[in-house]
Amino acid sequence: MRMNEGVEWALHSCLNLGWLGPERAVTAGRLAAFYGLPPAYLNKQLQALARAGILTSTSGPRGGFRLARDLDAITLLDVVVAIEGPDEAFRCTQILRQGPGGDPAADYLKLCVISQAMGRADLAWRRELAGQTLADIRATVERGYPDTPERTREWFATVAG
Amino acid sequence: MRMNEGVEWALHSCLNLGWLGPERAVTAGRLAAFYGLPPAYLNKQLQALARAGILTSTSGPRGGFRLARDLDAITLLDVVVAIEGPDEAFRCTQILRQGPGGDPAADYLKLCVISQAMGRADLAWRRELAGQTLADIRATVERGYPDTPERTREWFATVAG
Repeated sequence: MRMNEGVEWALHSCLNLGWLGPERAVTAGRLAAFYGLPPAYLNKQLQALARAGILTSTSGPRGGFRLARDLDAITLLDVVVAIEGPDEAFRCTQILRQGPGGDPAADYLKLCVISQAMGRADLAWRRELAGQTLADIRATVERGYPDTPERTREWFATVAG
Repeated sequence: MRMNEGVEWALHSCLNLGWLGPERAVTAGRLAAFYGLPPAYLNKQLQALARAGILTSTSGPRGGFRLARDLDAITLLDVVVAIEGPDEAFRCTQILRQGPGGDPAADYLKLCVISQAMGRADLAWRRELAGQTLADIRATVERGYPDTPERTREWFATVAG
């Protein structure tokens, strides 16, 4: 059970877009070059963020990606769901339906005690992710690494692409 | 990000072994037949539970699987980790190492604020899974479905294999 590595890339790229501000769109190629990531694959993740309403994507010579909303309105869960989809990690395939006394028409997603217990754990995970915004992350980064915003802006200002 | 479906099978099979008691070992084939599961693939999951010390496996004509300990000493997390392995779902690949100002020797698993935040969510998930034993699940099942233990024992007593 492994999360797509695009989640890590997407989270860092959103933070970088936050430091760059909304004035200019930034291409996938430049966002990828910042960490030496494969641009085409990062572009896929950024497109997923755009479909989820986290980024806006514009085409053309000055096109690229911008944040669609402030970082305080983007939770970790928003980004994870945009990349990974909304499904729970645990899939209840309702094997009780096929067991002795099982009812093929019953909804064991709701009835099965195991399914419910696994769902509670998933909920605890989502609650934790939903309780942290990218603005919280940014604030913690800036407390620990006060040079990061300026260094990020400088890099993007001097690197072409 | 999807959990192996063997987690569902393993959890249900452990409950069934709990109702059957430690007197007789039960083959993977019979545990699989209870839900119409593919026996070879369930056997793999049961072997993983045995390696994790949740089941004991004996070979020979009367061989099969037994619980290695009481259900109150087996948490949902024990079973998930036995099947899925110990890794967190979120993989921090330390992309900060390759970024401007990144230190190739630094441990960004610990330093990266995003990695830490994702780790807290993983911990909330694990804490929830570790807080529920299979004895808790069994008790809830028996409250809601008091016939289940006897029906399970009857099925295994009458079905060969």
